[in-house]
Amino acid sequence: MSTVTLNQISLPRGFRFSALAAGIKASGRPDLALVEVPRGSSASAMFTKNLFVAAPVEVGRAHLAKSRGQIRAVIVNSGNANCATGKAGVQGCEQVCREVATQLKLRPSEVFPSSTGIIGVPLPVEKIVPNLAALIGERADSIASFDAFAQAIMTTDTRKKTAAANFNAERRNVALLGVAKGSGMIHPQLATMLVYLFTDVAASPAELKRELKAACDESFNCISVDGDTSTNDTVLLLASGQSGVPLKACHKQFSGALSEVCQSLAKQIVADGEGVQHVIHLFIEQARSRTEALQVARTIAHSLLVKTAWAGADPNWGRILAAAGRSGVALNPGRVNIYIGEQMVCKRGVAFPFNEAGAHHALAQPHCNIRVQLGRGQDKIEFITTDLTADYVRINADYST
Amino acid sequence: MSTVTLNQISLPRGFRFSALAAGIKASGRPDLALVEVPRGSSASAMFTKNLFVAAPVEVGRAHLAKSRGQIRAVIVNSGNANCATGKAGVQGCEQVCREVATQLKLRPSEVFPSSTGIIGVPLPVEKIVPNLAALIGERADSIASFDAFAQAIMTTDTRKKTAAANFNAERRNVALLGVAKGSGMIHPQLATMLVYLFTDVAASPAELKRELKAACDESFNCISVDGDTSTNDTVLLLASGQSGVPLKACHKQFSGALSEVCQSLAKQIVADGEGVQHVIHLFIEQARSRTEALQVARTIAHSLLVKTAWAGADPNWGRILAAAGRSGVALNPGRVNIYIGEQMVCKRGVAFPFNEAGAHHALAQPHCNIRVQLGRGQDKIEFITTDLTADYVRINADYST
Repeated sequence: MSTVTLNQISLPRGFRFSALAAGIKASGRPDLALVEVPRGSSASAMFTKNLFVAAPVEVGRAHLAKSRGQIRAVIVNSGNANCATGKAGVQGCEQVCREVATQLKLRPSEVFPSSTGIIGVPLPVEKIVPNLAALIGERADSIASFDAFAQAIMTTDTRKKTAAANFNAERRNVALLGVAKGSGMIHPQLATMLVYLFTDVAASPAELKRELKAACDESFNCISVDGDTSTNDTVLLLASGQSGVPLKACHKQFSGALSEVCQSLAKQIVADGEGVQHVIHLFIEQARSRTEALQVARTIAHSLLVKTAWAGADPNWGRILAAAGRSGVALNPGRVNIYIGEQMVCKRGVAFPFNEAGAHHALAQPHCNIRVQLGRGQDKIEFITTDLTADYVRINADYST
Repeated sequence: MSTVTLNQISLPRGFRFSALAAGIKASGRPDLALVEVPRGSSASAMFTKNLFVAAPVEVGRAHLAKSRGQIRAVIVNSGNANCATGKAGVQGCEQVCREVATQLKLRPSEVFPSSTGIIGVPLPVEKIVPNLAALIGERADSIASFDAFAQAIMTTDTRKKTAAANFNAERRNVALLGVAKGSGMIHPQLATMLVYLFTDVAASPAELKRELKAACDESFNCISVDGDTSTNDTVLLLASGQSGVPLKACHKQFSGALSEVCQSLAKQIVADGEGVQHVIHLFIEQARSRTEALQVARTIAHSLLVKTAWAGADPNWGRILAAAGRSGVALNPGRVNIYIGEQMVCKRGVAFPFNEAGAHHALAQPHCNIRVQLGRGQDKIEFITTDLTADYVRINADYST
């Protein structure tokens, strides 16, 4: 079992993909994508914890409940988030789902919608609906179609993000395939971005839900680019059952594969973060609980002074210490150690002599490990985050309206 | 009663100031400053809530307690924060206080120390002590000396920050004068930066403490440049009593004057924030409590996507809405209104037609008001913050070690 690149993957049995350009993006790039899901599949999803949720999140949640996890199609547009668009936004989303359902002979509640792009602009239903027949006509269970899907859901992403895993159980092969988009507004809280996970294991929606929550907690919930939680975050796990292997017969293998695929996608999202030069692997160790480790990690990962020091590959550990000190966790300063790369730079809250050129060199790499030991307990996490560069500011400061 | 510029101020009676360059800053700029406080004065202070506190914060807190608020001298160095410097840092700080005390014939506990600058570098006591005699010899109750003091406590500040107020009570004049430094690592929590407030009102330390807390809550606790709470934040209020007017005879006037001076200094600190192009006055209205208004304000003010949109004068209100939605306050999206400048841009959680060029123009000014109405209650606050520019990143990414 291992994650593989696109040209090595085997598609989970039963799924068909397609994508095209419907003119939602001003650039003319592909912006409409579909997955047809075979009869008898199960679905489970996690959504953003933001109180402002986009129309497709509302509609998707309702459809999952109404169909009892029997999702038969996924329709995604990029270039427009359909968020803060009021009743018209919900109606537009439902209209798109109805059209897909009619053409595929499904119930509207069996169609799961997603949108990603700018907030507050009406969904251009008139560009989407006339393109649905062509979109559906092109669906295929090919790597090329899956690749087109991965491309069409991108916004500020600079590259496609996919991950796959396979394992054998009951002398059969089970496939798992994931695809994600996300580059900015990345600070998932219990769910994240747009992520679609396909497998041919046989499982109920309730079984999938348990698996998905565990996998998200240690992947998408442990990353941050900019600390902003999106209104559209969605992770959808679909299981066709067509491998013939029930989940309970391969629970441990499936958990491992799902965790691996989710972590791979999460890392790809961070590495493709807006303006990112350096990916920082922040290990918070010796915490009393995972929750307090996360709290310290997030405070450090969201400190502008820490993030800008990383952009300059500056081993300014005092900023890391100051951020930890305001995290709300009752730290004892005299017990905190900090390492940059392999070197200890702060011991028991006080400067520890270190080779500055070496620390600078470690931080100047595309990936760097930073370890903060709290001296309080045994729990630990790895939180993956980024530096904050002038490019990030430029990407997000452009007057775009 | 009004705040005035430096050339209009009258010094509160009894205080003497001086400053010089002791070579702590590599630039050779002034970095050591002193205030002599007359016998019979009262003092009260507020400190950072960061759990990692600098040695001078520890020592200053202990000296205030030991002297029962009878501070007779303030010694400040810039260029070194004396933080995360362990026992040696505390000993160095105490040694400086002892030397000042000896030369001014005071008890060491009557000397209040402050430091500001880089974290984790040993305090160069050997540069400070030999300069104390000259520093003390130059002290004077002149505007020029006060001005030199204001200059010497600066670090990345680009300008001095002072504010003054005067009022008459019991047919006498009471003066209040404040000076502050601060430009980065600005997100005070219950205390802030280095701020010194001088008055000749007559008051006990307990009376001063009440006044100071109220004034800080609506000034320094309502600003943020970068969301990072410093390890050295200190606000010190000193009252010489030499106006002959007791605080209880002028409580309302004094409160008003103190609030005005603190708010002026807070605004000056934000306007001089690192890399700042635009100061944003964020009005959070219709909150159930001041606490929840602050929580929403801080989440918006610390959102990288919001701050970078402001840098580009981009009226991207969807980012403001998304930040409010993840603030942890139980908002009802359908009740939230947003205004940029004078224009409503979002009504009841949905896009409201507005003139984009007008909103862009409002955001392009040095100061811009943004109003977010939560539709939950009657409480409101003004939170003052800044945009996030590529210059901020450059200032803080420079490899400085």
